[in-house]
Amino acid sequence: MTATEQKTTPGTMSDLTASEARAAAQRIAFGPVLFQACQTMRRTGLLDALRRGRQEGCTETELIAATSLSPYGLRVLLDMALTSDVVSRQGGRYGLTKTGHMLASDELTRVNLDFVDDVCYVGLRHLEEAIREGKPAGLRELGPWKTVYEGLAELPVTVRKSWFEFDNHYSDRSYPEVLPIVFRERPSTIMDVGANNGKWSLACLRHDPTVRMIAVDLPGQLRDLERNIAREGLAHRVDPRPTDMLDPASTLPNGADVIWMSQFLDCFGEDEVVSILRKARAAMAPHSVLYIMETFIDRQRFEAGAFSLAATSLYFTAMANGNSRMYRAEHFEPLVEKAGLRITERIDDLGLGHSLLRCVPG
Amino acid sequence: MTATEQKTTPGTMSDLTASEARAAAQRIAFGPVLFQACQTMRRTGLLDALRRGRQEGCTETELIAATSLSPYGLRVLLDMALTSDVVSRQGGRYGLTKTGHMLASDELTRVNLDFVDDVCYVGLRHLEEAIREGKPAGLRELGPWKTVYEGLAELPVTVRKSWFEFDNHYSDRSYPEVLPIVFRERPSTIMDVGANNGKWSLACLRHDPTVRMIAVDLPGQLRDLERNIAREGLAHRVDPRPTDMLDPASTLPNGADVIWMSQFLDCFGEDEVVSILRKARAAMAPHSVLYIMETFIDRQRFEAGAFSLAATSLYFTAMANGNSRMYRAEHFEPLVEKAGLRITERIDDLGLGHSLLRCVPG
Repeated sequence: MTATEQKTTPGTMSDLTASEARAAAQRIAFGPVLFQACQTMRRTGLLDALRRGRQEGCTETELIAATSLSPYGLRVLLDMALTSDVVSRQGGRYGLTKTGHMLASDELTRVNLDFVDDVCYVGLRHLEEAIREGKPAGLRELGPWKTVYEGLAELPVTVRKSWFEFDNHYSDRSYPEVLPIVFRERPSTIMDVGANNGKWSLACLRHDPTVRMIAVDLPGQLRDLERNIAREGLAHRVDPRPTDMLDPASTLPNGADVIWMSQFLDCFGEDEVVSILRKARAAMAPHSVLYIMETFIDRQRFEAGAFSLAATSLYFTAMANGNSRMYRAEHFEPLVEKAGLRITERIDDLGLGHSLLRCVPG
Repeated sequence: MTATEQKTTPGTMSDLTASEARAAAQRIAFGPVLFQACQTMRRTGLLDALRRGRQEGCTETELIAATSLSPYGLRVLLDMALTSDVVSRQGGRYGLTKTGHMLASDELTRVNLDFVDDVCYVGLRHLEEAIREGKPAGLRELGPWKTVYEGLAELPVTVRKSWFEFDNHYSDRSYPEVLPIVFRERPSTIMDVGANNGKWSLACLRHDPTVRMIAVDLPGQLRDLERNIAREGLAHRVDPRPTDMLDPASTLPNGADVIWMSQFLDCFGEDEVVSILRKARAAMAPHSVLYIMETFIDRQRFEAGAFSLAATSLYFTAMANGNSRMYRAEHFEPLVEKAGLRITERIDDLGLGHSLLRCVPG
């Protein structure tokens, strides 16, 4: 049983009273208001002022002095926070709750808030259209591209920053745990498919002074990668291969001992995943190994992990490309087998909730 | 102790574990995603199909047949719903949780969802600016007005519908309980200040076949009221008085036994509330009574009530006029006294959470 499986039968959930269920529904209905209130509390320094107040708490006068908010502005924000367990009050003194502390200080929470605000918020209004049409209908709010990947290099600077922080925050945390696993096989060449801006390739080059990398991605992304790798003086150990994996004619080169795909296949629909994995399969020697690192909704230890992934899926739907998603392992693993591969090892709970699948020719 | 008072000292809240607090923070961070997912589930008929599935639940195949969603679209929506206690699953069958039932069937929840979506969602992005400037900075997303009240008659039809449903839903529920209280005094003339489209005036005219009404509001609103009253053949018992209560030169006519202000003063800032109440005070004879019906954040029995009101305040901030709010009684009652009035009776828990203040010349 995982965090996302319910204990009760359909239609009879749960231990909530009617009044609690009504409260939960209003939390959803006014969710965008609470979201923007928290962003405003963060940006105006109110969360920070409350954090510095610690156990003793702060008075309204102290909070006004610390933030330059008007008494009116302070009170409407505090009332929102008091009624949603972000701030607590005793007598005339206000302080952060544990949830408030997460909003004020937790880096993951900040990255998620800014990603939703800068990348997703406005475009999400077109979620229904995106689902009906199978297209990222919200992306038009950011630019005239067919997919967000086409537009990454041209995004406004704030949006771009929030996108990359979100993208990198999750994978970075898992690299230290995953590197020793991948290098168990003592690979002399690793092919990094979906190499993006080169974070993983750089991690490998630093981890093993002799390993060579083949970096595969769209031409635009590889320009970032080449710049980042050159800056470290490691360009001579990297073979960049600009490739559109969705082009039916594209292939992957032979010769890699390990093929690596990290947070890559979630960018594609089910048929595309199978097609890409078949290209990997065709490039593998009998001894080659394919590692897939993904976040699976049904392999999360924490409720927050499963919820965040499911929400991220809807970013893919409305903003990224309209047909990809964070998968459930129960839906994803059959795609691997369909591509002629066999999963020999599954490791969960890496970093912030990654799973690693070790696959060999089937 | 009310639902909005916390039991613990500032900074030390609460009985959440760190992992639960992190989950709560992510619920806030991805709140706009969950909100749009629920709207999409409602509009595509998915919530309805699940509701009809009752105890037995529905399979994915049944849900696709009922909604015309793609398998991809269905799964991303279901994953969002499964990880946020809106839908539960057992084996391959899906059903609504209690929270899901509220989203599918509860009229108040629907009114709130549509109000946030159609009136507030996009404009809320400007909440920070609204608070810094003291102006409804989000209103520019709907039209070029200084306040939403100026624009009410010109709002796009969907937005207008959602606005009025929200406005009326709350007050309508309280009228049957409040009418007998107001008519205890056997008034022959009632002045309805902020009469809007005439719902209260009509309720009074129907309740007592001899009572006369004086209806006070901006000229635009009074046109709606006059049409609605004429349709019922009751125009001869109503005296419409177009008045801008914010105009320093405006006054209220004498001669009413009861002055009525329902969900009216929350549209104004504190200084304005005092100024309007002074005009009421000046129009009162020694025997006159002023009834104020408001929803106070700190007089709510249910957590959901206080939360919804605090969120509604931020609609006033970002969209309505930038300086009004749902008040706390602790902050509101001193304004009544400042205007030279005395509160002789407080009745809470009317309808969906209204309070009635009976005031006499102080």
